[in-house]
Order: sequence, then C-alpha cells, then structure tokens
Amino acid sequence: MSELQAESNHRVTRVTVWNEFVHERRDDSVRAIYPEGMHTVVGRAIERYLGDTVSVRYATLDQPDHGLGGSVLEETDVLTWWGHCAHDQVSDAVVDRVVTNVLQGMGLLVMHSAHYSKVFKRLMGTGCGLRWRNEEDRELVWSVNPGHPICKDVPSPIIIPRQEMYGEFFDIPQPDELIFISSFSGGEVFRSGCCFGRGRGRVFYFSPGDQEYPVYHNEGVARVIANGVRWCAPSQRDSAALSAPRAPLGWFESEEAHRG
Amino acid sequence: MSELQAESNHRVTRVTVWNEFVHERRDDSVRAIYPEGMHTVVGRAIERYLGDTVSVRYATLDQPDHGLGGSVLEETDVLTWWGHCAHDQVSDAVVDRVVTNVLQGMGLLVMHSAHYSKVFKRLMGTGCGLRWRNEEDRELVWSVNPGHPICKDVPSPIIIPRQEMYGEFFDIPQPDELIFISSFSGGEVFRSGCCFGRGRGRVFYFSPGDQEYPVYHNEGVARVIANGVRWCAPSQRDSAALSAPRAPLGWFESEEAHRG
Amino acid sequence: MSELQAESNHRVTRVTVWNEFVHERRDDSVRAIYPEGMHTVVGRAIERYLGDTVSVRYATLDQPDHGLGGSVLEETDVLTWWGHCAHDQVSDAVVDRVVTNVLQGMGLLVMHSAHYSKVFKRLMGTGCGLRWRNEEDRELVWSVNPGHPICKDVPSPIIIPRQEMYGEFFDIPQPDELIFISSFSGGEVFRSGCCFGRGRGRVFYFSPGDQEYPVYHNEGVARVIANGVRWCAPSQRDSAALSAPRAPLGWFESEEAHRG
Amino acid sequence: MSELQAESNHRVTRVTVWNEFVHERRDDSVRAIYPEGMHTVVGRAIERYLGDTVSVRYATLDQPDHGLGGSVLEETDVLTWWGHCAHDQVSDAVVDRVVTNVLQGMGLLVMHSAHYSKVFKRLMGTGCGLRWRNEEDRELVWSVNPGHPICKDVPSPIIIPRQEMYGEFFDIPQPDELIFISSFSGGEVFRSGCCFGRGRGRVFYFSPGDQEYPVYHNEGVARVIANGVRWCAPSQRDSAALSAPRAPLGWFESEEAHRG
Repeated sequence: MSELQAESNHRVTRVTVWNEFVHERRDDSVRAIYPEGMHTVVGRAIERYLGDTVSVRYATLDQPDHGLGGSVLEETDVLTWWGHCAHDQVSDAVVDRVVTNVLQGMGLLVMHSAHYSKVFKRLMGTGCGLRWRNEEDRELVWSVNPGHPICKDVPSPIIIPRQEMYGEFFDIPQPDELIFISSFSGGEVFRSGCCFGRGRGRVFYFSPGDQEYPVYHNEGVARVIANGVRWCAPSQRDSAALSAPRAPLGWFESEEAHRG
Repeated sequence: MSELQAESNHRVTRVTVWNEFVHERRDDSVRAIYPEGMHTVVGRAIERYLGDTVSVRYATLDQPDHGLGGSVLEETDVLTWWGHCAHDQVSDAVVDRVVTNVLQGMGLLVMHSAHYSKVFKRLMGTGCGLRWRNEEDRELVWSVNPGHPICKDVPSPIIIPRQEMYGEFFDIPQPDELIFISSFSGGEVFRSGCCFGRGRGRVFYFSPGDQEYPVYHNEGVARVIANGVRWCAPSQRDSAALSAPRAPLGWFESEEAHRG
Repeated sequence: MSELQAESNHRVTRVTVWNEFVHERRDDSVRAIYPEGMHTVVGRAIERYLGDTVSVRYATLDQPDHGLGGSVLEETDVLTWWGHCAHDQVSDAVVDRVVTNVLQGMGLLVMHSAHYSKVFKRLMGTGCGLRWRNEEDRELVWSVNPGHPICKDVPSPIIIPRQEMYGEFFDIPQPDELIFISSFSGGEVFRSGCCFGRGRGRVFYFSPGDQEYPVYHNEGVARVIANGVRWCAPSQRDSAALSAPRAPLGWFESEEAHRG
Repeated sequence: MSELQAESNHRVTRVTVWNEFVHERRDDSVRAIYPEGMHTVVGRAIERYLGDTVSVRYATLDQPDHGLGGSVLEETDVLTWWGHCAHDQVSDAVVDRVVTNVLQGMGLLVMHSAHYSKVFKRLMGTGCGLRWRNEEDRELVWSVNPGHPICKDVPSPIIIPRQEMYGEFFDIPQPDELIFISSFSGGEVFRSGCCFGRGRGRVFYFSPGDQEYPVYHNEGVARVIANGVRWCAPSQRDSAALSAPRAPLGWFESEEAHRG
C-alpha cells in the first residue's frame, strides 16, 4: 500500500495562473512593478515554495477562450484568478466552464479585486461588494486560524507597507473557515483570507494584491498563495458532480456502489 | 424606550407565499390533496401559529410578474417559495429582483423541490442536485440543533409516513446552521433543514413537502414552516446593500456615520 | 392560536447580571466610572432598550453562592458575566451549575475579560488566551454580519475612543457566527463579537468593556448588549439535556414521543 | 526550495494509537473479534493506507501514565483514542496533558464510545450525550462533503451490516465541517464524522466502531481512519500556544516578529 502513498506524494499539482493582464500593458506605473505581468510573479512564487510538486502554466484574457479552452480546465488542479478592470470582458461561456470545473473538484484561488469577478460572484451567490480606498494605507494581515495549513510558516501579521484599503462589510456568505483578518492604518478591517467549499471544489479568497503596489513581491503574501494552492488542490474530481440521479430502492447494495 | 420595544413586538411580519401552482391544476392526485393549491395550506399554517403577528398574501406563477411585480417584494418581509415542474418559466427579471431583495434583507423560505429553483441556485452558487426516489418512503425528520428557534415545539422526529426520498449528496454549500437531518426507510439521509445567510438576508431551506403526499397537512411540518418564517424575518433592511462605496480616510468619524 | 403568540410576545426575559464587583470597590479610578458597579450600568442599558420585555436582577461574587444559589439560575433566561481579577475565586460548584444551565438552554453573555473566566473556558474547551495592552488604544467595532439581529440599530463602526487592546490570536473555537471585528489604533484586530451554540444554550462573547474606561456608557455598546440578551434568550429549556438515553427500537412511534 | 518540499513530503507522521484495552481482555465476544486488541487493527489499517509516511506506536490504559508519559505526546503528531467502560480510570493529569498538546497542535482522532471520554468532553465543552441501542442495526455512513480529503476513496455509503445505534441529538458544538451522516435501520440518524479545530490542533470524531462488532475490519471504515489521521496531522506546533502575552505598541514592527 506504500506504493499508493508514494504515488500520492509525488503527484504533481497542475496550476493555471490566470491574469486579466490589462493594467500591466496599459499603465506605466503597473508595468514598472510587474514588467512581465503579475501572473509571472505569482507563478514563480508558487514554484518557489512548492518546487517540483507543482507545474505552472499561464493564461490571460487576450488569448483565445482567455487561454482556458480545450481541456485546459479539465487538466488544471488549481486555477488562480486575478482581474480588475475587465471583468465584463470575460465570456459567460468561460465563466460557466470555470464554475462547472470548481463544482466538480478543481480548486480556485481568487485574488484581490477578483472579488468582483463573474466567477467569484457566481460561486458566492452574493453581491461581493466592499468598501475601498486607494490612499496607501498600511495593511496588517493577521492569522486567526494559526493551525490551518494555509498559515504554515506565515508571519502574523504580514506587514504590507502600502496597499489599497478593502473594508467591511464584505458581502460574502460566512466563510467555512476564516483564516486572515486585515487591519488598515485608516482603521478599517477586512476578512482577507476566506475558505469556502463549493460542490466538490475548494475556493480560497485572499485579498492582498493591488496592481499599484508591489504586494506579490512580499514573501509572506507569496507563502500564503503557495499554501493556498496546496489547500485548494482536489483530493478527487467527479465529472458527474452536477447530476441528480434517481436512486432506486436499495441501489447502494450492489457491490459496485458501496465500493465507492 | 419601552415604546420602541412595544413597536417591535407588535410589528407585523408580512409574508408572501409563492407557489408555482401547476400540479394542483393539472394533476387530479395533487388537487385531491390541495384543492385550493398548496400555497393556501402553507399560508394558513403560518397564520395558525403566528396569529396576528403576521399578514399573509399569495402569489403564483400565472399572475403578471408571477404576482411579484410593483412593490410586492419591497413590502414582503419573508417570501416562501415552492416550485417543481416550471422552474424555467420563472422570468430572469423576477429572479433578479427576488435575489436582490434577499441580499437587502428579505427572508426566503425555500421548500422541497425548490432546491432546483433559479432563485435558490443563484443564492447558493452550487448545482443543488440530490438523489431522489418517489416510492413512498417513510421520512423521519430529526432535530440536530434543538436549542435553535426553528426547533421550538417541533417533535423530534417528525414522522412523515409517505414521502418522496431526497438523499445525499445534496450539492449545497455547508449551511451556516444545520437544523434537521432526515432518514428515509430506504436508508438514505438528507440535510432537510438548513440555514444560510446571504447578504443582509436569511434563507431557510426545508425539504419535506412533495405534491403527491399530504405533507403540508402535517402539524410538525407546519410548525417548522411557521418557526422558519419567524427566523427569516429581517431585523432591518438595507436598500444600499449592493453598493461598493469608496470610503475616504476617516469617513466614519462624522457623527452621522457612527450613529449608524 | 394567536393566544399562543401573544403569550410568546409578552413573555418577559429574566436576566441576571453577574459582576465580580471587585475593581469598583478597590480602585478609585474604576469607582469614578462605575460608582454603583459596572453591573448596574449594564443592567440599566438592558432595561433601557428592552423595556418591559425584560426583568433584571443582579448577582455578585461576594454574595452567598455568588448570588447564584437556590433556583436563581433555573429562573434566569440570560446570564451576563463580567470578571477579571477574581476568576479563581468563583467556586467550581457554581461554575458547574452555570455550565449545566447553559447546556440546558440558559443564554450566556460573556463580557470583556471574562474570556478568561472558568465558565467561558469550560464551554469553549480551549485556552481562550489573547494578546493585550492597556495603553488607551482607540477601538473601532465593525459589523461583519449586518443582517444579524445583534447588529440591529448598531453603528458600524462603534467608536470607542480609549480602550484596552485585545488582539489575535484569540484562542477560541471558530464561532458559529462572527458578528463583530475590532481594530485598534496600534494595528491589531480582534474577533470582538462571537456567537456559539453549546448544548441547548446560546453564548455570545462581546469584548468591549474594560473597567478602566467608560465603555459601558457608550450607547453603541449598550445596544449590542441589549440585542445580545435578546438573541441569547432560550426558545425552550430542557432539564434532561445531559442525559444519554437508551432508545429501544421504534421508541419514537408512540404518540407521545413524536408529539415532541 | 524543492528541498523544503521534499522534506515536507517525506516527513513521517508519528501516530500513537491509544486503547483502553479492557473489553478485549475481559469479554470473550470481543476477544474473538480483536484477539490482539482493537488498537492493533486500527494501527495496521493506518499503516496499510499511509505506508512509510507514517510511524505507529501503541499505548494502553494499563501502562504507566497510560503509555503517554515522558515525551510520548510531544513526539506524537496524531493521537487516536478509543475508550468505553473505563473513562473514569484515565487520570486527570494525563487528560490535562493530552488537551494541552491538542491545543498546541497535536491531532486527535476520537473513536466511537470515546465521545464520552474525558478528553473529548473537555475539548467540546458540552455534555456529548447521545441516544443509543445495541441491537444489531445496520448502519449506513453517507458522505456529505465529498470533496473533503477525509472522503477520498471512501464509498458512500459505507455499509456496516451490524452495529450499535448512535442517534441524535448528539450534544456537541456544531462541527466546523460535517463529513459523514449515518442512518440506522431503526430510523435514527447521527452526525458520524465531525471535524473541529481546537487551539492549533484538529480533532476528528468518527463514530463507527463498537467492540461487539468487527467494524474496524471494514475497509471503508479503515480508509476513513487513515484519511482522518492525515487530515489531523499538524502543519506546525506551537508550545507557547497557551500564553496570553502583553503586546507593547508596535511589537510586530521588529523584523523577527513579522518574519513569523
């Protein structure tokens, strides 16, 4: 049986890092921070911490099917999502496929302003609004669930010297597990790290990361993203997850059924 | 200050009981059980238990705007929803308005096969599928949160001699509070009473109630519905709930803001 | 049936406000703020907001059985608890009785430094530690569950100009419902309003309220306490809650059992 | 950085399987099922599924300090606990040390009748009672969180042909994650797989497993136990978890603090 285990330990988590990739091309201030795009910094952070247990690919809005066509999603264990100014340019067909894959088991890591992405709003069922201010607040990210795997080796607080303020009330359903709470120098608070189960999939929302500040270069933030990827990675995937089968009396008594 | 309280105690909860109202007109077997429609039996149960603290009105699919036009929703504290064979005939415009009102504070009590209604699926963000079988299983409804107000004066178990089976996995997000779990004589289990917060609103899903069985005539079931209406009733409503305001530094220091 | 309802609306919630009542007698600085004891200010706040739907009595550490002997607890719907420097003087027999009554349905509102009371630690099962600093931080108390009845008419944020800092990690189980998060001017955050179910009872922890600052004179704080009392009040009480009965096959089929 | 990862992947989870080990010596019927004690069957199941990623040792009530003296607990990542007829023979000193280690991060897997163990009751804070009947009910164990790692490769339902009935109301706090619900042929239901966070530690309660039936020989049950051990294993451990440090203004601004 240790073969099974060995296999499980060496199985590679396939990550697709998705980025809207508009600001970096359009705004000098953003390009100065992320010359190759935010996604590359995020992807390298994941590789740096997770090593050869992970394989990273990239996808962006401007690609055909936003880079998520064919079997990309079916071959993705964890999708990370960053968007801000072009949420409405994401096609509904792609949104449907992302949501379906999450409900079947794909992990989803939702970053910063993607709180307002179509994908996140669909999975939450709420408005996902929040208070905001872009005036260089200092953000402190505090762990409130220090035994959780997402907190492993993460300082509490993570200190982000300059950052956009995101404040409560954040219109999400109560998270299944609340991991981080941030304070801002202006006095606001925010539930900045939130875990949700949706269908067979896991969703982790992590708010630090505005395009105007070098937040994804912060090592504490990078560590959280890597831990989040690992937490979101599915145990198993079920392509029949969205069915609603009729179950004849005693259906589970056949051997096949209870073998699982 | 006791005036405030008195007002609060005597405030009437305005309930709108919504019914698809198709089976009762089309199927003799259903009309035999609910000659005036299921909604009237549900509405009377609510009146029977909540007395003059409640006012009940009705709305059905076949009415203009499904009976939910004008300011009906804005003047509804708790909406109950039953649907089965005509989910797709509910207009998206009405669904949008129901969802918006829930997020602003309106209570929503979702009944039985309305697990597959557009309204519920939108608020959950998941597929909402389940296993099912219509073969006269006996359902037992057990309280697993006996101190919760929805369990007040409810027997545990409620015994429903004949009922459609709904079985796990029920594809909903983990409820904020799980109130009832049902077993069926065929051996399945189901999370049959589930509380969710969505925005400023409260959603209670309660599964007993197929059109082919006289389930809404059961007093235990009626009691749960009445308790559920009371639990869903909003403390306050916020028509600005879906905004995402910019919050200038120190915005809350003005008197108006912190007066709430 | 409207009689039932009328009864329920007019039923008086019996509140016992418990105070260690040591600082107010010993420390001039505290007596200056609470000359008759903190409990009287808390009790009057509850009366002010809940009017004749509530009856308030007081109990203190120095009384026989800490004022909780005889049938006081059995005749209490909601107990509020404030303690700080004399937790270890509370007798284990009284702690046992308080815990038993909570598990049977009595509400418990735990205030500020009572996070370290024997009663709260027993009900939580964790260490209940936190970070602290007594240097006149400004505390802002933010609602993160604005549709919850405890937030009714509560400003967000409540501004407390000077207060002891309580900071994360707060070693409690994840609350069933998180209601408030505070920030402090020094940058820390704290889960300052937390709802827990324990047995048939409800527990609400609310952290504002140090003896060195006039926090219980703040109207926002007073409102939360009144709302919290109402939320904690039991729907029903079960003196057999701690039994573990053998259940013979079919025990629930007798009429008495399923009548509830 | 892949070195770090490699280390993490190959790190062995140290499991201590604790058993009261009274029934197997005293009762012929139990010895027939578990001639070397239940703990050996449990331990071998863990080894069978987790292979060389785990090391298993055993401890029993009759040993000095119940086999948990010296640094055994500090060197245990996950402790499994089975007890039934001798809960009160477990010394309070050992209970204190187990609880402290859980709060510092040690995982705890609580099995069947250990719902009434001192250790579990201390960590829950509730009465932990339930309904029961020992009359050879068939138990079906249904997954209600199929994406959770504890459900990996577990059939739904697990069919246990003969088993003691455990029924609701089970007097525990609402679990952070509910994983399994069982039905019994007599009609009762039970939350049979429950996840809790306590301090930095994780607790998994799994109810199948009476001494009178060969439940731990069931492969589905064995798989759940193995998965549960892996889920409980700590990310990190904090021997200072029970402190409540004073935090001077700006304490976190030193480099050491925010490095974590």
